Amino acid sequence: MPGTYAGKLLRINLSTGDIKVEEIPEEYLRKYIGGRGLASYYLYKEIDPKIDPLSPENKIIFATGPLSGTAAPTGGRYMVVTKGPLTGTIASSNSGGFFGAELKHAGYDMLIVEGKSEKPVYIYINDDTVEIRDASHLWGKDTHYTTDKLREEVGIKNAKVACIGPAGENLVKFAAVINDKHRAAGRTGVGAVMGSKKLKAIIVKGSKRPKAASDEFMHVIREKTDTLRKDSITGEGLPKLGTKVLDNIINQNGLYPTRNFQTGVFEKTHEVSGEALVEKGYLIKNRACYACPIACGRVTKLPTGLEGEGPEYETAWAFGADCGVSDLNAITEANFLANELGLDTISTGATIACAMELYERGILPKEDLQNGPELLFGNSEAIVYYTKQIAYREGLGDKLAEGSYRFAESYGHPEYSMSVKKQEMPAYDPRGAQGHGLEYATSNRGGCHVRGYMISPEILGVPEKLDPQSLEGKAEWVKIFQDLTAVIDAEGLCLFTSFALGADDYRDMLAAATGWDITTEELMKVGERIWNLERMFNLEAGIDPKDDTLPKRMLEEPMPDGPNKGAVVKLDELLPKYYEVRGWTKDGIPTEGKIKELGLEELKK
Amino acid sequence: MPGTYAGKLLRINLSTGDIKVEEIPEEYLRKYIGGRGLASYYLYKEIDPKIDPLSPENKIIFATGPLSGTAAPTGGRYMVVTKGPLTGTIASSNSGGFFGAELKHAGYDMLIVEGKSEKPVYIYINDDTVEIRDASHLWGKDTHYTTDKLREEVGIKNAKVACIGPAGENLVKFAAVINDKHRAAGRTGVGAVMGSKKLKAIIVKGSKRPKAASDEFMHVIREKTDTLRKDSITGEGLPKLGTKVLDNIINQNGLYPTRNFQTGVFEKTHEVSGEALVEKGYLIKNRACYACPIACGRVTKLPTGLEGEGPEYETAWAFGADCGVSDLNAITEANFLANELGLDTISTGATIACAMELYERGILPKEDLQNGPELLFGNSEAIVYYTKQIAYREGLGDKLAEGSYRFAESYGHPEYSMSVKKQEMPAYDPRGAQGHGLEYATSNRGGCHVRGYMISPEILGVPEKLDPQSLEGKAEWVKIFQDLTAVIDAEGLCLFTSFALGADDYRDMLAAATGWDITTEELMKVGERIWNLERMFNLEAGIDPKDDTLPKRMLEEPMPDGPNKGAVVKLDELLPKYYEVRGWTKDGIPTEGKIKELGLEELKK
Repeated sequence: MPGTYAGKLLRINLSTGDIKVEEIPEEYLRKYIGGRGLASYYLYKEIDPKIDPLSPENKIIFATGPLSGTAAPTGGRYMVVTKGPLTGTIASSNSGGFFGAELKHAGYDMLIVEGKSEKPVYIYINDDTVEIRDASHLWGKDTHYTTDKLREEVGIKNAKVACIGPAGENLVKFAAVINDKHRAAGRTGVGAVMGSKKLKAIIVKGSKRPKAASDEFMHVIREKTDTLRKDSITGEGLPKLGTKVLDNIINQNGLYPTRNFQTGVFEKTHEVSGEALVEKGYLIKNRACYACPIACGRVTKLPTGLEGEGPEYETAWAFGADCGVSDLNAITEANFLANELGLDTISTGATIACAMELYERGILPKEDLQNGPELLFGNSEAIVYYTKQIAYREGLGDKLAEGSYRFAESYGHPEYSMSVKKQEMPAYDPRGAQGHGLEYATSNRGGCHVRGYMISPEILGVPEKLDPQSLEGKAEWVKIFQDLTAVIDAEGLCLFTSFALGADDYRDMLAAATGWDITTEELMKVGERIWNLERMFNLEAGIDPKDDTLPKRMLEEPMPDGPNKGAVVKLDELLPKYYEVRGWTKDGIPTEGKIKELGLEELKK
Repeated sequence: MPGTYAGKLLRINLSTGDIKVEEIPEEYLRKYIGGRGLASYYLYKEIDPKIDPLSPENKIIFATGPLSGTAAPTGGRYMVVTKGPLTGTIASSNSGGFFGAELKHAGYDMLIVEGKSEKPVYIYINDDTVEIRDASHLWGKDTHYTTDKLREEVGIKNAKVACIGPAGENLVKFAAVINDKHRAAGRTGVGAVMGSKKLKAIIVKGSKRPKAASDEFMHVIREKTDTLRKDSITGEGLPKLGTKVLDNIINQNGLYPTRNFQTGVFEKTHEVSGEALVEKGYLIKNRACYACPIACGRVTKLPTGLEGEGPEYETAWAFGADCGVSDLNAITEANFLANELGLDTISTGATIACAMELYERGILPKEDLQNGPELLFGNSEAIVYYTKQIAYREGLGDKLAEGSYRFAESYGHPEYSMSVKKQEMPAYDPRGAQGHGLEYATSNRGGCHVRGYMISPEILGVPEKLDPQSLEGKAEWVKIFQDLTAVIDAEGLCLFTSFALGADDYRDMLAAATGWDITTEELMKVGERIWNLERMFNLEAGIDPKDDTLPKRMLEEPMPDGPNKGAVVKLDELLPKYYEVRGWTKDGIPTEGKIKELGLEELKK
């Protein structure tokens, strides 16, 4: 087995109770690397993309990469890959913390969970000892209680737990998998898939650290870590202010989505920014994930004494500016709740924001609130209240739990859902960054900023500064960013490393870890392969290429004020160019030639 | 087993062929940590200190520490512990490279080799597979050939080899163990002990990386690595110029021993300095040991095309200034030869220097040279020639192979041997640094600079600048440095880290690796325990406390020129104070109280 791979996958069928360990052929490893790549390959090969995501036929894969669990900077990440209930696309949600590294240390590159249990269960993994155990006593419990209780039960204080909260159990379409209490595989509703299988949690303890093939590995790792340390974003901005280093930057650039994307400037950003989090005394300390030199995590405390982690930039925006709320207290409380109940904070906040617009426009009638607080922009009480309602599917929460698209559609106005392929867009108004708009429209898991983060060149100027309103070369940039992101997700690293590292760096680390004589070109080809594989899955799942679009507001309503006043996303110009750059037909279908070039023929059904 | 320990030792008896794996009780680990500490404990417990070091009754232990083989900065080191043939004291020689980490990855904290083989053998270790194999075909071969050949034979390209060259086979009293071709457990003649057991080599391949007990480990490691990176010595001086960053500094401070310590200023330092090595084009690149962010190793090339590593500061001095030689070519060639033949470069060069003084003074008659080149200071031909002669014990080499003390004594003038307890002093004239003089005099393995490197505060000003000629507080400093060094050697780290790290840092790393709630005070107590244990071993071995002294020249001949003109080492004032600080009797014997305080009663025989 090459270097830092375990070379094995663990397969657990919850319908039959079967537990199997399988070898992973080196051929697949080299072709898909691991993590998002390898897991997507297995998923596509093993399930029919047309199935109902919440049926027993769906599978859910927890996958590490070759750098997971090593000393590589940020090597603590893992991927949850499944067919997602929110979007109906392939879903791959990434998370940090310590769970992924521990799974690798237990000796598995991946865990594939199949079928459905009759009663609630959890999976216990302690190196070679693997058991399916009853979790009836944990059903209904939050993620923090579940984590503590499981550790106590198995008697391993620092065992790592990934689990769902009530939201996942109640099949909320944007329920998250929460690991290490505060880290989330947040998006696309992967938590609901666990819930549909009655799988409450996975607890892991491992004792085997992977060993690199090359003696140069530690040296290469040091070099890349050093680069991260010296970089102004990964060495300074993120350690100092966390992801919330972005609030003021994005707001000043006029693409900080406010009140359900009605504008791109929030007048109260200074009250909720990363700086404010420090100045107002919420921040206790930083927290790093496994092997991470950046340590962007924030341990925070409310004036009431409640402790937790976050809010991150996206979270504070979703519960904040997007809902017109500037009460850092309420935002942080909603964040803590989302972690404990197991919800994706972006979709939770953005769905509430959508409901607020519908309510203010008189489309959502007051009686539907069932005596809940009024859904008015700026009502901080509402964000905490409805977050809880969603997780438990109580009152209006039951409808909100379907996500903003289905919610708005049920009132006859899907155009007020700020989503792509039914998943809510994150904290960047694409009217302020054309390339980022193209990225949202073409993301293989719906509205998402971490499938090709064009904000980096268009706003932050990394690796170089592009004019955010220019269309020139953007299709090419998006392709490269999408492919490189797939590589990073496959290797088991954090996307944040890409602020400081480039494709050659990811090649260096992979080569030293595996002993492979791999070129940067081959590596980027793997990224392209993963991207096309996901596309093929989605097409077979019935996702129409016409869904490569954005909410009407982004395309037709000019930004009303701020630096981007008057702008809309020129998707009609960007998209054909993108299809061309991708080597797809003008209708957005990968050509036979492209599929063959990437060696994906075997997957086509 | 706590965290990063393997928790096991491998015991191989070459007389009987027995191979055993034993558990190491956690009690010993916590009491002696590992490496130099734990191995010294086992050695003392298992052998009679009075035995002949080259008899089958001696044992030789290869020991890693809890941080060996982890991602801790410089965590690639191991210790060779035995009774040393050069000094008759306990010998513990430290080396870097990759061998130590690999031994740990094979699943052993220590390897204890006992007895004596009839015919040449090597030990093959591949995780749980351990074999004693015939090495007749390798006997007589140099360390580079041996390393390559063994890797080829076992079919593992990157297996790690520690071996002896002809010098060890021929029982040269200062033969080294060479690992990874260019790294040496250099001093005290540990290579001769291997030779006496007919053990040519150990080849290791391991696949198990140790796992830290605490999730904080990687974070702690990053923090310490960062400190090393930012330090002017470990982050700048050593990476840039290697250990040879020192030549000019030590020479300018007037303690660069020249022509067998006849003075402390070498007029040609600029021709052989680290800067010259770069300017003259010898340096090809840096090379780092396992997990080392400093990378002080130099890969060099001679104008003739010969490639190798080094010379290090000590080596270039021993073959250079100490022999009055400024020919960088000859110095580097002698260095390469010493690595290939398996010799300690300090004792080799210093023994030739001693012979040069004896020859120039007419004490060593020309006929004894047996037609070899004249032993005149500055004769570069001589250093290469006699290095080879020593390794093969040919001509005058047979006598030189006994070390400078026995050599000079055989001519009736032991006072011209610049040694302590029969081991040659390294590249700092103690007349230029009083504390360093005390350190030489009291070192438990004879003349040595890495048992409490007082040059750091007295010359380099780290952690603070002390007046090198003042006696004030020096005994206390020496004790702290000796104890801290023992801790570093026990943990499995490189002493160079101590330029930037302090006792608290070593505590942090150990605590995170093992999960122990250990205080810095407890840690320093371990250092003191190791120091006293070694002292007790030496006393029982028959080493007289009166041997805590320096060559007469250092005590009675005032430095003839340079910044330290007129100085001698005031050992008569320093030593009684040191004994007092150590809590020993005025005759230098650890008191019953001290032994009990340190929990060493069980070892007293």
